[in-house]
Amino acid sequence: MCRWLAYSGGPVSLDDLLFKPENSLVVQSKHSRLGATTINGDGFGVGWYGEPETPGVYRSTEPAWNDRNLRELSAHARSSRVFAHIRASTGTPVQQTNCHPFRHGSWLWMHNGFLAEFSRIKRDLVLAVDPDLFPLIEGSSDSEVLFFLALTFGLAEDPPAAVARAVGFVEETGRRHGIEYPVQMTVATTDGTASWAFRYSSEGRSRSLFHSTDVATLRLHYPDNEVLDALSDDARLVVSEPLGNLQGAWHEVPESTCLVVRGGHEELISFAPAAP
Amino acid sequence: MCRWLAYSGGPVSLDDLLFKPENSLVVQSKHSRLGATTINGDGFGVGWYGEPETPGVYRSTEPAWNDRNLRELSAHARSSRVFAHIRASTGTPVQQTNCHPFRHGSWLWMHNGFLAEFSRIKRDLVLAVDPDLFPLIEGSSDSEVLFFLALTFGLAEDPPAAVARAVGFVEETGRRHGIEYPVQMTVATTDGTASWAFRYSSEGRSRSLFHSTDVATLRLHYPDNEVLDALSDDARLVVSEPLGNLQGAWHEVPESTCLVVRGGHEELISFAPAAP
Amino acid sequence: MCRWLAYSGGPVSLDDLLFKPENSLVVQSKHSRLGATTINGDGFGVGWYGEPETPGVYRSTEPAWNDRNLRELSAHARSSRVFAHIRASTGTPVQQTNCHPFRHGSWLWMHNGFLAEFSRIKRDLVLAVDPDLFPLIEGSSDSEVLFFLALTFGLAEDPPAAVARAVGFVEETGRRHGIEYPVQMTVATTDGTASWAFRYSSEGRSRSLFHSTDVATLRLHYPDNEVLDALSDDARLVVSEPLGNLQGAWHEVPESTCLVVRGGHEELISFAPAAP
Amino acid sequence: MCRWLAYSGGPVSLDDLLFKPENSLVVQSKHSRLGATTINGDGFGVGWYGEPETPGVYRSTEPAWNDRNLRELSAHARSSRVFAHIRASTGTPVQQTNCHPFRHGSWLWMHNGFLAEFSRIKRDLVLAVDPDLFPLIEGSSDSEVLFFLALTFGLAEDPPAAVARAVGFVEETGRRHGIEYPVQMTVATTDGTASWAFRYSSEGRSRSLFHSTDVATLRLHYPDNEVLDALSDDARLVVSEPLGNLQGAWHEVPESTCLVVRGGHEELISFAPAAP
Repeated sequence: MCRWLAYSGGPVSLDDLLFKPENSLVVQSKHSRLGATTINGDGFGVGWYGEPETPGVYRSTEPAWNDRNLRELSAHARSSRVFAHIRASTGTPVQQTNCHPFRHGSWLWMHNGFLAEFSRIKRDLVLAVDPDLFPLIEGSSDSEVLFFLALTFGLAEDPPAAVARAVGFVEETGRRHGIEYPVQMTVATTDGTASWAFRYSSEGRSRSLFHSTDVATLRLHYPDNEVLDALSDDARLVVSEPLGNLQGAWHEVPESTCLVVRGGHEELISFAPAAP
Repeated sequence: MCRWLAYSGGPVSLDDLLFKPENSLVVQSKHSRLGATTINGDGFGVGWYGEPETPGVYRSTEPAWNDRNLRELSAHARSSRVFAHIRASTGTPVQQTNCHPFRHGSWLWMHNGFLAEFSRIKRDLVLAVDPDLFPLIEGSSDSEVLFFLALTFGLAEDPPAAVARAVGFVEETGRRHGIEYPVQMTVATTDGTASWAFRYSSEGRSRSLFHSTDVATLRLHYPDNEVLDALSDDARLVVSEPLGNLQGAWHEVPESTCLVVRGGHEELISFAPAAP
Repeated sequence: MCRWLAYSGGPVSLDDLLFKPENSLVVQSKHSRLGATTINGDGFGVGWYGEPETPGVYRSTEPAWNDRNLRELSAHARSSRVFAHIRASTGTPVQQTNCHPFRHGSWLWMHNGFLAEFSRIKRDLVLAVDPDLFPLIEGSSDSEVLFFLALTFGLAEDPPAAVARAVGFVEETGRRHGIEYPVQMTVATTDGTASWAFRYSSEGRSRSLFHSTDVATLRLHYPDNEVLDALSDDARLVVSEPLGNLQGAWHEVPESTCLVVRGGHEELISFAPAAP
Repeated sequence: MCRWLAYSGGPVSLDDLLFKPENSLVVQSKHSRLGATTINGDGFGVGWYGEPETPGVYRSTEPAWNDRNLRELSAHARSSRVFAHIRASTGTPVQQTNCHPFRHGSWLWMHNGFLAEFSRIKRDLVLAVDPDLFPLIEGSSDSEVLFFLALTFGLAEDPPAAVARAVGFVEETGRRHGIEYPVQMTVATTDGTASWAFRYSSEGRSRSLFHSTDVATLRLHYPDNEVLDALSDDARLVVSEPLGNLQGAWHEVPESTCLVVRGGHEELISFAPAAP
């Protein structure tokens, strides 16, 4: 449905993340290897943190492979925290306000997957969004509503708990409408200091998700690899699919798991929906 | 804020409506004479009826003056009922789903004006929309929500009554939130057989609205006018501002009035908000 | 590289050509079966003839599968002569002025393929364009330059001869620059009364091209086929790849051939480049 | 026709240049005070220098006032040399490749004005472009051709001389075609280390052009001005029209003049077309 990438570590050029890898996100926009669809050409977005507290977000409805401005931005922007997403719409319009990542204050959010039969449950879901947040919903996608539910349920205080409650609420609502498997998701979110990635689906058959191995260890195995040389020790990537074929560089995130990345430290914690 | 045009009568080229008049809608997109803003460059849309029951809708986020495809379409499409709108956003994003006219089945709707402090009342308004219609709201504009309220309150059965109830509901909601003048509008709507145009504002200072005079009478006064020659006797235009300077060709629609155009017949009826 | 379709016959809805067939051009934009690339997402265009002598041309840089306005236009426009093209850029920018079909007066032109190493020979080619036509070149693609060469060499008088001279000139120029196989093309052109389709490549390995069989004969074989029922006897399609799997419905156009379609009559004539 | 801004000095946020000034370039895109047109809504572009030798260029066909990505980029990019341009087309298509600034290697170029009756002389002009540079012309505008003529005539070696020869060549060509006043221009160009701004027209009635006064001097007069406080001593702006009303902050660049800005030093030199 979509593909995404979440980077944290020493400052890198966006170019190094989005264009240069063998199976870069821009390559995946035309030829995804593991995605539910091979083409992810319904817009894209990049969020990056810099000096201002609010991250920058560049979103476009063009296919990523055609966007000249993305190349320009990527060649000039450096950041120590980057979220990037290529979209394959599951039905909602191709417009900037439906492109990921979504932003609220210093938070970013992106999603691969869908809320099943979204149009049937949309009303119930948006009604549960905090009325103060409600007018800030700009687009019409399921992914953005899921973000606002997470915000409503306390994303800023306890991300895993808030996402668990948001997912729990969607599942409860969906099942009330007779929807068997309401949630399919890999989600990444960040406040600019840590990142949380979730792999979950009601059905237990979630979209692919991988995280990179400790860079220092990798360097020991590949002393001549220039890419690894350029990365800081705390550099970490979480991706829908590996950016290349380097043996041992990628670990699959297990089903029903939340991966927390804080500096160079990762933690895998079990994830299960919670009653809202 | 915006400018619009509603035509009904014998089949005409869209070109004759959108490009050829001296003060055409495309001219108004750059230099509106009577608008709240001189530029209406935040997208545009055209709806036209043809053989299929559902009208066609062409909407674009480009300024109308730059859109080459609009010129092409206009040169080739002929229709006996055309709605056209140029947008000056009052804050919501410039995207196709916020461009007018909005469509539901065989109905079209377009709006010049705004719902004051929309973000404060948006949640209450969309909650009042028929839950079956709710998922069909595609954009994020106040104008589309007003359309869906009118649909909810019976637009298909009795347009003036439904709009009166929709406006009444917005005013009641707005005043509950301490908004003095919740509604500013000229609105046009049609089901493909008749058109209804409304001029109303809570404040009693509504945007400009005009309708054309009986063509047969005009022809008597201007026997050599080629434009008039080409129009059918039942041709009628309702416009935000006159398309030219022909003396006697335009009548102002009074404040708090609904103009009904059915074939070559017009009826002006008093309009007042009603309790929903 | 690209895919295209040329229809002539009784008036049909654009919808019937572009969206409804099993392997429609819009389907091909995401999943071409026989193309050099499976994705043709770098813009598209439709040209159609109606009442005005000049055909309408709707061109967009969006992928065809995402363009809502194309759906609207297709549902409402009917035409007895339609050219449609989906683009996979071979390097020149994705912009409307590089989208096919190109137009000059009542002529349309579309091309699948490329002029090899175009940037090395572009200057020599455009210098050969009639100086009166030169300023009318709007885009930067090889396909448009080939069109203007054909116009220069007499397209309006004798299309096969003019295209032969244009191709001959490109080959001569290319070879002078040491380019082994300068031309790869299937081309369609029309003046609104007849259509000419060319299949040629310097290498003798041209892109696929097919034309439809006589409709009356097909109807005899498939008396219950509703699509065939709706077509006029003189309906003819020339396509980069078949729009469906109906046995016997499609003939391959041979290498180095020009297919002339005039009303319900087809003629296959041998095509070879000529000295300009 | 267009408006532009050239900044050099200590690193500043693009935001401070493009959005924050009272009469910022984005404000001018809707309401230019001194321009030949009040609206400059036919696309825009920003070029900025950073770590890579090649400057970044962000160009869009949307009106600058509507482009969300420009806001995002501006909030996050800082640069010590920025070129920005808002376009009012004089006829050539609104497409990215016609948006300024144009780039070649480390050079940027932007232009306000026009080459009169460009379509009549375009062929002669592009024929004079160095054949090695010719294929790099991407768009169809007069401004880009003028850039490539300047490059051909030695822009990289001696900018004022090269521009003088380019202008001389256009005037000679234009007059051969009976065009009375072939050139109307204010032009800015830079190689990343110095900037050259030209004000010239064949008619002697050139578009407006201003440069900022020495910042240190201004600070003495306005000790409490926060904007001035934030600027480095060598900060310099060259603009189509002043960005605000601060008395003494702006000097008009005289007719037929080249302004050279190198660090905090300016030099005004007389400019006259030269024989190519």
